[in-house]
Amino acid sequence: MVKIAIDAMGGDFGPDPIVKGCIAALKRRSFEPILVGNKSEILSLLPKRYKDKILIIDTNDVISMSDAATDAVKRKDSTIYKAVELVRNGEADGIVSAGHSGATMTLATLRLGRLWGISRPALVTLMPTKTGRRSVLLDVGANVDSKPEHLAEFAIMGGCYAEDVLKIKNPSIGLLANGEESSKGNEVTKAAYKLLDGYPGFKGNVEGGDIFNGSCDVITCDGFIGNLVLKTSEGVASTISQLIKDYIRKSPIAITGALLMRKVFKLLKKEIDYAEIGGAPLIGIKGCAIVSHGKSNSKAIENAIYQAINYVDTGVNEHIIARVQELKQKES
Amino acid sequence: MVKIAIDAMGGDFGPDPIVKGCIAALKRRSFEPILVGNKSEILSLLPKRYKDKILIIDTNDVISMSDAATDAVKRKDSTIYKAVELVRNGEADGIVSAGHSGATMTLATLRLGRLWGISRPALVTLMPTKTGRRSVLLDVGANVDSKPEHLAEFAIMGGCYAEDVLKIKNPSIGLLANGEESSKGNEVTKAAYKLLDGYPGFKGNVEGGDIFNGSCDVITCDGFIGNLVLKTSEGVASTISQLIKDYIRKSPIAITGALLMRKVFKLLKKEIDYAEIGGAPLIGIKGCAIVSHGKSNSKAIENAIYQAINYVDTGVNEHIIARVQELKQKES
Repeated sequence: MVKIAIDAMGGDFGPDPIVKGCIAALKRRSFEPILVGNKSEILSLLPKRYKDKILIIDTNDVISMSDAATDAVKRKDSTIYKAVELVRNGEADGIVSAGHSGATMTLATLRLGRLWGISRPALVTLMPTKTGRRSVLLDVGANVDSKPEHLAEFAIMGGCYAEDVLKIKNPSIGLLANGEESSKGNEVTKAAYKLLDGYPGFKGNVEGGDIFNGSCDVITCDGFIGNLVLKTSEGVASTISQLIKDYIRKSPIAITGALLMRKVFKLLKKEIDYAEIGGAPLIGIKGCAIVSHGKSNSKAIENAIYQAINYVDTGVNEHIIARVQELKQKES
Repeated sequence: MVKIAIDAMGGDFGPDPIVKGCIAALKRRSFEPILVGNKSEILSLLPKRYKDKILIIDTNDVISMSDAATDAVKRKDSTIYKAVELVRNGEADGIVSAGHSGATMTLATLRLGRLWGISRPALVTLMPTKTGRRSVLLDVGANVDSKPEHLAEFAIMGGCYAEDVLKIKNPSIGLLANGEESSKGNEVTKAAYKLLDGYPGFKGNVEGGDIFNGSCDVITCDGFIGNLVLKTSEGVASTISQLIKDYIRKSPIAITGALLMRKVFKLLKKEIDYAEIGGAPLIGIKGCAIVSHGKSNSKAIENAIYQAINYVDTGVNEHIIARVQELKQKES
């Protein structure tokens, strides 16, 4: 059975939503959770019938959001460090943490190591599209100043993720740029284009709008840019919802209208709510690490656990190693 | 009186919305329009009483969207070339074109020249925010692979634009990055941070979401990234509106609700509709060029003309020269 190590303390709201998310996941999927954190706090949140079913690794150090990610390697008693070590030692198959994302990425990369042929792991996110199917965007923040070969590796990893985890056959892969023509791009994307040209599924440059129209399954970009795209998208969605609320408040007729449209807004919220996805897998490491949002509620943690189980179950890592090998052979 | 040369033929819908936009602008502001394009076509669209009031420069060549921007310099009879020459020769103060944006930027830069101290002109756009006030984002596509000094120049030009054209006193200026801390950023933004540190109004790094929350008046970034941010924003807004429409269609109650909320959606559309802004000024050239969307309707052209008039009237170019001089003195 898949074993998932869960950082019970790292989220902004303490262990409560994390323990709840873990219990909710246990009700629907069979896996072995290992909660890492303050044992007495965790036990106080666990219903009686779960106290024997869940392994708890007792530790009190928690890396806080204000700590430097670079110090994480020294914090050997921290929840994230201990959870990563469980994977390193083969006692767990994957980790889920809503704690310090930089620390999680650093520790997972350094302690677990990179997959063969991968220079830099990447953070993956799933973006909502008009078609209802989600598009895979990576890297959304594990790296800045990516080189062309990194973008090519991200593309390959994203393709394997789409195929194995999202079950998309022959996923199309795009390179995020400032225009569709092959002449468009900056120095890095133009060179990445050449590396990816001819790779199965590669359809060339795609633009910012293509992330959401469902025309492309996988989109590769530098992490600095991916972070901006993600934060911009959240900003636009939040601004639109804020403006709608402001306008509604000013008109009784609109309030009535909004009440009748409640279900529509609920569906929309569900579509753009990150809690429905769970977290962001760090792809390219030996093992599995799901980086969850600090503000994760129990639903987000539950879904992050499913992501971890699916990631491990589908063997996406082996797939990546095989595919990267093909690309390297083509290059040489 | 301010003279504006208008490319009458370049837009996707031919001269009709452009001539209409020009007439609408004439009804509200006093300026001298010069329409550049096929004279008989333009005349056929002009109401009788305007036939003597509007100067028409007759030419038949139109640079089409599929032409290479680099060929624009050879197309001396094209509408864009002729309109730019009017500014170069002092016969007009600014140009408005909904034609080939690359050609407009190339010709305006090469034929009019750059302002003293400016290495690269930048394309400016105004983004809607939660506060109702718009934020100035630049560069949104005139350059890729910007160097730190370019980002600093964009910041200064954006600040002058906010002060003079948008009448924002002491505008705050942010550097678009993947986190607020000064340690965040890629190589280019980190170096730009150092150049801008201490510049009046500079508040450090801002994130993607800050473009829309109104916390920052001016945001500087590389044009490759600005283009992605802009296209991503349009994509999110269009996806949300599409999803709302899809959901509404499935429920009679929601349809009734949507009817009652018509005014809300209208206000929202107005807020995010680029036609309300007009076009994107190319800032940093000797003169004034407003780059309008190819799909501009008459409202967008009308607003682009106001932008051009305001740009010329406020003397923002002189302001930029003075400010850049201050920065260069600080650097040396």
